[in-house]
Amino acid sequence: MNVFIVGTGLIGGSFAIDIKAAFNESIIYGVDKNEENLEQALSLGFVDYVSGFNDLEKADVVIVAIPVDATVEVLPIILDKIGDDCLVFDAGSTKKKLCDTIGNHHKRRNYLAAHPIAGTEFSGPQAAIANLYRGKTNIICEVEKTAFKLQERGMEIFSRLGMRIRYMDPGSHDKHIAYVSHLSHISSFMLGKTVIEKEKNERDIFDMAGSGFASTVRLAKSSPAMWTPIFEQNKENILETMEEYIANLIQFKKLIENDDFLAVHKEMEETNYIKTILKGIA
Amino acid sequence: MNVFIVGTGLIGGSFAIDIKAAFNESIIYGVDKNEENLEQALSLGFVDYVSGFNDLEKADVVIVAIPVDATVEVLPIILDKIGDDCLVFDAGSTKKKLCDTIGNHHKRRNYLAAHPIAGTEFSGPQAAIANLYRGKTNIICEVEKTAFKLQERGMEIFSRLGMRIRYMDPGSHDKHIAYVSHLSHISSFMLGKTVIEKEKNERDIFDMAGSGFASTVRLAKSSPAMWTPIFEQNKENILETMEEYIANLIQFKKLIENDDFLAVHKEMEETNYIKTILKGIA
Repeated sequence: MNVFIVGTGLIGGSFAIDIKAAFNESIIYGVDKNEENLEQALSLGFVDYVSGFNDLEKADVVIVAIPVDATVEVLPIILDKIGDDCLVFDAGSTKKKLCDTIGNHHKRRNYLAAHPIAGTEFSGPQAAIANLYRGKTNIICEVEKTAFKLQERGMEIFSRLGMRIRYMDPGSHDKHIAYVSHLSHISSFMLGKTVIEKEKNERDIFDMAGSGFASTVRLAKSSPAMWTPIFEQNKENILETMEEYIANLIQFKKLIENDDFLAVHKEMEETNYIKTILKGIA
Repeated sequence: MNVFIVGTGLIGGSFAIDIKAAFNESIIYGVDKNEENLEQALSLGFVDYVSGFNDLEKADVVIVAIPVDATVEVLPIILDKIGDDCLVFDAGSTKKKLCDTIGNHHKRRNYLAAHPIAGTEFSGPQAAIANLYRGKTNIICEVEKTAFKLQERGMEIFSRLGMRIRYMDPGSHDKHIAYVSHLSHISSFMLGKTVIEKEKNERDIFDMAGSGFASTVRLAKSSPAMWTPIFEQNKENILETMEEYIANLIQFKKLIENDDFLAVHKEMEETNYIKTILKGIA
């Protein structure tokens, strides 16, 4: 099985590592516009050969793991170059724009729209790790638009990598993921910004930071190159989540201003319900 | 060494566990208005005897680890009841109100104002763990107001438990900790609230949540009984941090609304500086 990894960073590299382990006969070809990434991927050993778009005709599987704006650009080109029996899937955090863009492509049936809910705040080939996808949810959009035998090939990979599958339309995906992922990144980035700004005048402030701060601000380490186009493609949904989040903060602030600490207590008590929800999430 | 733990939950219980291990001759007395907590503390073994305020005269050390509003109430009573050679310290997340309250107490020199920056999102005796304090920062306020030999006793405990010490005045402590701890809790609670509200209409939304969401929302599991009085006592500082946080969110939202994604990228890139800061924090 010839597997082309387009984008040999955290996401693509972690797929390469697990696929090499799960499929004996797999050969991994790395494609990346960043030469340094390719060299690292080779020396780390999860890529067998450096390759390019002109070799795509020999691919059985192509995994596109690059920022979502680049995916929208190159996916039609990749589909043009692959053979009729090749499966292409991506791993992007937005699905609507991409599905719309290639909706009428003559090779639409070779593409499976996927979003594995997995990652870390790190990036690049050295961030790639084994078992990143084990036990994680993989959201598949518009599955009916993918050729049946290529769906099967995709599911075999996801199954051997230990993922559980959820099916969803691209619009619902983008709307829901804005709440449980994109908003978290924004709240974390803005928390980091607020404290960094304060530190300019009040030195040593970070000396007082503990694991609670580290946890809430962890996502502020994430790659701007990856996240900017996500915010751009999912703009409307993200604006909606931000509006609600800001409104909740303003209302909580008012309760504190008005010394209504009974209501403050009640708000927190109700939100403790999150305990139930987080059971089972890493 | 007779050590009285007032409040046998996560913080007090974790002190008891480590002190038992670090001081062979220590005997731990548990005091708690919650009978169930006391029974659990006894059966978990980190408390040797159940006790009460009337036994305080035999205490060498009293650790007050209860919500900060309760501390303000009972610390003067505890100081009234202890002997002249007893050290009392607390572990609360606000220091100004408490230091002001007992500033003129005739046993002020028996008290050491402490804030170990350590904890988890869990609470109660069963949440108590060994080595919670190892490698953590302990902020000491108004150290000059504590009797020298009692300072020494406190430092011996903190040192054996592996803590590093920082000295600060109560006002600066409360101001800075609002940024690196209290605001994190509010951002996390409000994030949890926003997503829970959404889930009422959009079922299955949490099925899509990954480790990033879990990390940013972790603190929303925290105890309202503990956090409400912290927000009350540190109201002014917290309102200031919330104002800045909300302003940053509104400005980031405007950038997205105006399609200024170059600026969005720049904001995130600058906030990536948090990577440098988080090195060394759990």
